[in-house]
Amino acid sequence: MLETTIAAIRPADETAMAAARELHGRLTKPAGSLGALEDLSVRLAGLAGACPPPLPEPAAVAIFAGDHGVHAQGVSPWPQEVTAQMIGNFLAGGAVVNAFARQAGASVTVVDVGVATPLSAGPVPHPTVLDAAAPAPAVLDPAVPRLVVASVRRGTRDLAVTAALTRDEALAAVQTGIRIADELIDAGARILLTGDMGIGNTTPAAALIAAFTGVDALDATGRGTGVDDPTYAHKVGVVRAALARHAPDPTDPLGVLAAVGGLEHAALAGLILGAAARRTPVLLDGVIAVSAALAAAAFAPDAVGAMVAGHRSAEPGATVALRHLGLEPLVDLGLRLGEGTGALLALPVVTGAVRVLHEVATFDSAGVAEK
Amino acid sequence: MLETTIAAIRPADETAMAAARELHGRLTKPAGSLGALEDLSVRLAGLAGACPPPLPEPAAVAIFAGDHGVHAQGVSPWPQEVTAQMIGNFLAGGAVVNAFARQAGASVTVVDVGVATPLSAGPVPHPTVLDAAAPAPAVLDPAVPRLVVASVRRGTRDLAVTAALTRDEALAAVQTGIRIADELIDAGARILLTGDMGIGNTTPAAALIAAFTGVDALDATGRGTGVDDPTYAHKVGVVRAALARHAPDPTDPLGVLAAVGGLEHAALAGLILGAAARRTPVLLDGVIAVSAALAAAAFAPDAVGAMVAGHRSAEPGATVALRHLGLEPLVDLGLRLGEGTGALLALPVVTGAVRVLHEVATFDSAGVAEK
Repeated sequence: MLETTIAAIRPADETAMAAARELHGRLTKPAGSLGALEDLSVRLAGLAGACPPPLPEPAAVAIFAGDHGVHAQGVSPWPQEVTAQMIGNFLAGGAVVNAFARQAGASVTVVDVGVATPLSAGPVPHPTVLDAAAPAPAVLDPAVPRLVVASVRRGTRDLAVTAALTRDEALAAVQTGIRIADELIDAGARILLTGDMGIGNTTPAAALIAAFTGVDALDATGRGTGVDDPTYAHKVGVVRAALARHAPDPTDPLGVLAAVGGLEHAALAGLILGAAARRTPVLLDGVIAVSAALAAAAFAPDAVGAMVAGHRSAEPGATVALRHLGLEPLVDLGLRLGEGTGALLALPVVTGAVRVLHEVATFDSAGVAEK
Repeated sequence: MLETTIAAIRPADETAMAAARELHGRLTKPAGSLGALEDLSVRLAGLAGACPPPLPEPAAVAIFAGDHGVHAQGVSPWPQEVTAQMIGNFLAGGAVVNAFARQAGASVTVVDVGVATPLSAGPVPHPTVLDAAAPAPAVLDPAVPRLVVASVRRGTRDLAVTAALTRDEALAAVQTGIRIADELIDAGARILLTGDMGIGNTTPAAALIAAFTGVDALDATGRGTGVDDPTYAHKVGVVRAALARHAPDPTDPLGVLAAVGGLEHAALAGLILGAAARRTPVLLDGVIAVSAALAAAAFAPDAVGAMVAGHRSAEPGATVALRHLGLEPLVDLGLRLGEGTGALLALPVVTGAVRVLHEVATFDSAGVAEK
């Protein structure tokens, strides 16, 4: 399945890109006056192989949730149960990602790829039946968050001690991501947005970014949801030691994901590959998403053509990863929440960039003089 | 009318701001993880005097259009008739601002405050009857752009030769802006977005920015919709000479608007004052809007509390003006189109910031543990 997906990922269609550039020159606006939106719409034409490319509607957020053995090293101030509790919050519609998704008209799919705590724990009852075998919906409903249980294992092993995952476990998570991309696109989604939840997941993200880009652990590691100075220094040390212990090979992305990654990171890499294989844009959220995007690009360099960087996370590693991928984020507001919130804020910019090619009059049709 | 409006503009409500900060600390997200959106929502609570502040829906774009005597100096490569032709395009729904407004569900009101060319000229028939005495609508219809004819004069005088406007003409345009703000808010708008159209209007904008902030003409002047190097150098010279000739006094905003401004700039200053007096946020577009915002702040310093900077225009003067106002833009995508397009791209960010305070669960209500 992974090999088939990778083989289906093709370079951008130069003819469609040229057509989009030519159309931009005829629309009733000064040439280039839409800045980054013009470049974005040209890229999306190249991805779709059509000018104009399809409007990215409806949009689907996929939130992959997992836990992390490295939590035992004290890299996060939050208890691990919060991962499962926040899934309850997502399904009840009470999280920030839900508020932003309702505003954008995007559906929310939560995928348990490796949560440690039983999902039924906690005071919040889940509104959705936990059914691993539930079929994919025919149509996405933005009003009702959906849970998919596809747990590979109840949290990763501690990457400070051993490999976080076996290669088979990492592969299973990647394939879950591909399957979710296919399901969402089959159900009508024309853009996928990455979301994530996992207490401690900025530590494997930092290790992935250092492994794939070659930067030092210090430059790849941030304060996540807010750690103090001693915890931050400890976190950098954990990342550095893990890289030294495992010596991950960036040309072997499955090996890197297994050694220092997380199940949600691996699944997100699969989601990105699955979207790219279907020539469907995938709007990246923050540091977890871009660490997974590095893995996807290592599997298939042309997958970068499907990626749109939603926002610049406050995590320094996110900027390192975006630079490595050659992507400029659309929004830069100091967010460091995850869940898919930064991608959702950028969604109207993506839709607007494409809409211009669909709806704006030409100088000729509108009877407007040129300079 | 201007004095009454200025007198109605009050400082932010500290109690509502404190309540918004306190609420942010209880919502299911790490403290501060929404970055600039948290600060924005606190400011809007202070403006409304309520926590949460009202959702900024519906939104109304007001595009003020005018022409400029300084066009005779060759500061723009576009013919002056394009101002009137683009009004036809706005009313026919074919411009970028229309595409973005449809996407955002915002109504579009076009106000002729001083277009030089007769609006009936050009091959595009206007879908709206030109009726200066038409009453304000009771409800805003996002599907049908509306034209208000409130022309003070058919374009300003050439600021390179004489004052662009008399004080009475500038005052008439400011009062038109106040009236439009009142009409839109009375019709239900809960946020106003600034739009502008006027071939040559970045030249008076640069002069206004230099006059109000004290920077050199070179730092306030940009390339507008795209002028070549010789035209740019000439444009800077025109701005510098105008400042030397008129020596505008920044403590006399009406005098500055009359000497080196434009009718759409004056009307936008009025719109901002009118919104601030009604404790309604006004989302600023690009360099024309922020030059008008400097005038509004000179009339009433507390009006800054109603201003939200939509985007960072590619025009250098916009950054100078935003710094002077102490505002950070929400979006930075290299746009230099005007019309209200940058403000419309930022609108979902503003709505999202407020929505969080309305809809996100607290740690307590969602049963999520804290760190």
